[in-house]
Amino acid sequence: MSINVVIPLFPNFTALDGIGPYEVLQRIPEIDVTFIGHERGVVRSDNGMLGIEVDGTFEEHPTPDVIVFPGGHGTNALMDDQRVLDWIRNAHQTTTFTTSVCTGSLVLAAAGLLKDLTATTHWSTRPTLTENGSVPVAERVVEHLDQRLITAAGVSSGIDMALRLVELLVDSTAAQAAQLMIEYDPQPPFDTGALEKADDTIVTRVIEYAQHRS
Amino acid sequence: MSINVVIPLFPNFTALDGIGPYEVLQRIPEIDVTFIGHERGVVRSDNGMLGIEVDGTFEEHPTPDVIVFPGGHGTNALMDDQRVLDWIRNAHQTTTFTTSVCTGSLVLAAAGLLKDLTATTHWSTRPTLTENGSVPVAERVVEHLDQRLITAAGVSSGIDMALRLVELLVDSTAAQAAQLMIEYDPQPPFDTGALEKADDTIVTRVIEYAQHRS
Repeated sequence: MSINVVIPLFPNFTALDGIGPYEVLQRIPEIDVTFIGHERGVVRSDNGMLGIEVDGTFEEHPTPDVIVFPGGHGTNALMDDQRVLDWIRNAHQTTTFTTSVCTGSLVLAAAGLLKDLTATTHWSTRPTLTENGSVPVAERVVEHLDQRLITAAGVSSGIDMALRLVELLVDSTAAQAAQLMIEYDPQPPFDTGALEKADDTIVTRVIEYAQHRS
Repeated sequence: MSINVVIPLFPNFTALDGIGPYEVLQRIPEIDVTFIGHERGVVRSDNGMLGIEVDGTFEEHPTPDVIVFPGGHGTNALMDDQRVLDWIRNAHQTTTFTTSVCTGSLVLAAAGLLKDLTATTHWSTRPTLTENGSVPVAERVVEHLDQRLITAAGVSSGIDMALRLVELLVDSTAAQAAQLMIEYDPQPPFDTGALEKADDTIVTRVIEYAQHRS
């Protein structure tokens, strides 16, 4: 029996949001990962520098075991995309886990899945979560296992979430084996990976970069 | 003036090796990232579950500022691919930095770049580095700045390396801003991300999974 994981892609996705979890999950023989979207073919990332192939449509995957919904600027357009929101609502009825990374949680919230629940997203978009009745918290991974919902914070946090997901789906040894296979023994050169840890100089630079892009 | 980074792709690449550094580097307005390969079009990852588009050929990018060479099972075929090895040797003459993630260093070594130098790779392939005269070490990122060479260990280590690369190419504030943008405040659920930290049960499972794949 294989566990079917789908990772939706869409124009202006953030690549690491999806590829981090993919790289963990695909290590497990019991798990199959499929990248899905509006139509088959290549979609480009948030800066246009990267194209990833969509291998199936939402409708071709109505009942995945696990959804990992990544983020990126493109989630703005999905928050009122009824085709995507309907797919999420229907698919969630039978998933083992419905999860998100970064602003992917804004789409789960727009589909009504996170109402009155704590959740996380990229630190810069926490207020947007409240628009659909969710309660944003500054945590890296937020679990509601009774509701089969897990949300992860910005971009790289999907790696941490995916390891936990393997523990839940298979076992702890599988998760630790995946961690060793991707040699995930992080040694970040700085300690500025959370808003609470970064000083004004860093935040100012982030704002400058964000303005440059938009 | 933009800094041109190229990330080679090839059949059976490991996605996170390339996408980790891409996600860090593309945050910096001064940096452009291009995925290159033998020919334009989609190539599939080591398990076939993911396709990424090659946007230019090796020959179309003869003088990149930075090379980030990812790994994956596909590097076996590249270690005697004269087209790729010639490209590396020529391009390295004018790069600011020539770098690798995971088994990408085996290709740099095969091109003769790592002779008599310490270097790193995925923990499972350290002995292979010696075949081309390199000296494998169990470190996450190995720098030879005087030779403009940096190698990173398995898969996820490319994120740490790329942050260091931004510090070298731009400045420390840029690197810290990139770290905050990708919310890289790692909280791995286990401490088994290095061979030296994993017990026999974990290593046995990794071997089992590797046999399943091959």
